[in-house]
Amino acid sequence: MQSPKVPEATIKRLSIYMRVLKDLERKGVEVISSAELADICGVNAAQIRKDLTYFGEFGVRGVGYYVKELHFDIRKVLGLNQKRNIALIGVGNLGRALASYRSFTEHGYVFVAAFDVDPKKVGTFLPTGVPIEHLDELPRVAREKHIEIAIVTTPAEAAQDAADAAVRAGIKGILNFAPVQISVPEHVKVKKVDLTTEFDNLVYHLSSGT
Amino acid sequence: MQSPKVPEATIKRLSIYMRVLKDLERKGVEVISSAELADICGVNAAQIRKDLTYFGEFGVRGVGYYVKELHFDIRKVLGLNQKRNIALIGVGNLGRALASYRSFTEHGYVFVAAFDVDPKKVGTFLPTGVPIEHLDELPRVAREKHIEIAIVTTPAEAAQDAADAAVRAGIKGILNFAPVQISVPEHVKVKKVDLTTEFDNLVYHLSSGT
Repeated sequence: MQSPKVPEATIKRLSIYMRVLKDLERKGVEVISSAELADICGVNAAQIRKDLTYFGEFGVRGVGYYVKELHFDIRKVLGLNQKRNIALIGVGNLGRALASYRSFTEHGYVFVAAFDVDPKKVGTFLPTGVPIEHLDELPRVAREKHIEIAIVTTPAEAAQDAADAAVRAGIKGILNFAPVQISVPEHVKVKKVDLTTEFDNLVYHLSSGT
Repeated sequence: MQSPKVPEATIKRLSIYMRVLKDLERKGVEVISSAELADICGVNAAQIRKDLTYFGEFGVRGVGYYVKELHFDIRKVLGLNQKRNIALIGVGNLGRALASYRSFTEHGYVFVAAFDVDPKKVGTFLPTGVPIEHLDELPRVAREKHIEIAIVTTPAEAAQDAADAAVRAGIKGILNFAPVQISVPEHVKVKKVDLTTEFDNLVYHLSSGT
């Protein structure tokens, strides 16, 4: 089902299509033309057709796409048809915000554990009821709770320690929100999320008038 | 100085180079080879050279790049050599987190105003001392405080109202964190930040083993 050569940009767009299809499914829409779907997603119809060809045949000529079926298939393609247990490392403002971010839960990402090194935070709870434990407990908790992904929201200077702990705990994927690059062994995937980049990008377009 | 045809991916990488160069400058590094810079940024040296050619001549053959000079030039290219006043619309967990996100301030993005429609929030203050005002005040405040960018962190169902208010207030750029597409006139730039997409992307790579 999966091809190793799918471009990064396609994967990002599939994620957008999926979200739009989910909305449509909720609203009871059964079929949508590729032109309509493209319009809602903010891309052109040819792009959607091209993106979907990486994975096989979707849609029916002259009719469009069956919303529910396409939604299901894209989720499968993206490996999202199962719950994923997430650990939060670094319980500051951003960490608390992300742990309560409704869309994560809706997409099957479940925050099952939270870690910090601040003695004032360890032993307390997130608003969702998840206990905040000491980072030293990560390996044990990761094993017990089958944690697959760590989300790092520590300050910059603590991010590498957080990543090292995640690697020692056998975690295979890290989403890094700390404003610093972290090093991990090759078998671990890291995705860096830099919110400043989004601003820079917007400002560039404002300045250049493109 | 600015070319309208610079690829989106180049702009994103420039933003990364800039951040790395800033770090190097702080550490007192004066010159760096393109190979070293590439290594730290996680791209290859040819890519860096190619990205920089869009903007003119940088670096000295056989020596490398002057860190301070390149940092300054990239900031200029990205239109970042000035402060930008930002308004926060929607003061929930995420909004509060972003308003305290240190990197924003370091990059010249200053949260000068915050808006909500919840009477329990209006009249109170962010931890940074910024007052939370009613969304109806946005046009007046935007004029008085020269706000250029709005960051929307409302729930999905309130995001379009927030964007409409920003457009009426003459704001030209919107960074949308709400999990929904918003519509704006063509002269306004919107950048949608979808944190779930980052997760999906990571999980896809974990599932497919690429």
